[in-house]
Amino acid sequence: MDATEILGLAAGALTTFSLLPQVIKIYKSSSAKDLSLKTFLLLWSGALLWTIYGTIEKDIPVMVANVLTLILASTLLFFKFRYRNQ
Amino acid sequence: MDATEILGLAAGALTTFSLLPQVIKIYKSSSAKDLSLKTFLLLWSGALLWTIYGTIEKDIPVMVANVLTLILASTLLFFKFRYRNQ
Repeated sequence: MDATEILGLAAGALTTFSLLPQVIKIYKSSSAKDLSLKTFLLLWSGALLWTIYGTIEKDIPVMVANVLTLILASTLLFFKFRYRNQ
Repeated sequence: MDATEILGLAAGALTTFSLLPQVIKIYKSSSAKDLSLKTFLLLWSGALLWTIYGTIEKDIPVMVANVLTLILASTLLFFKFRYRNQ
């Protein structure tokens, strides 16, 4: 694994796990009012395309980061739906 | 430009512009209470590393998507700061 791949994995870890504090904040506050549903639907679809792109390009950082982003974005969409009346 | 590069640009467009509805929502509601500051700080740093990664790898979709993400994430950080007391 060369330095560039490590840089890509670090970048992926940051952008992927950037969603984690948001998931925790909504879970604790049971409120997702200020969050935009469109944002997370677009993010989810983009992460899906990035995963396909990374697989075709055999670009591991892009692939791994976006599979995880898909999982976290799905969690956020679930919370946005669950707390829709709050 | 081959099909894979178009796929990468499409993925980048989706994940980058996914932030736009969130920026508009905060601007309209003047409220960013439910948004996690940590999320956008991590996202910003990740986008910076992805931009460097894309430049080294000469991966245009990754580079372009993340420069734009940096701009939108900076806007969200500005709003999160500006509406911190609301």
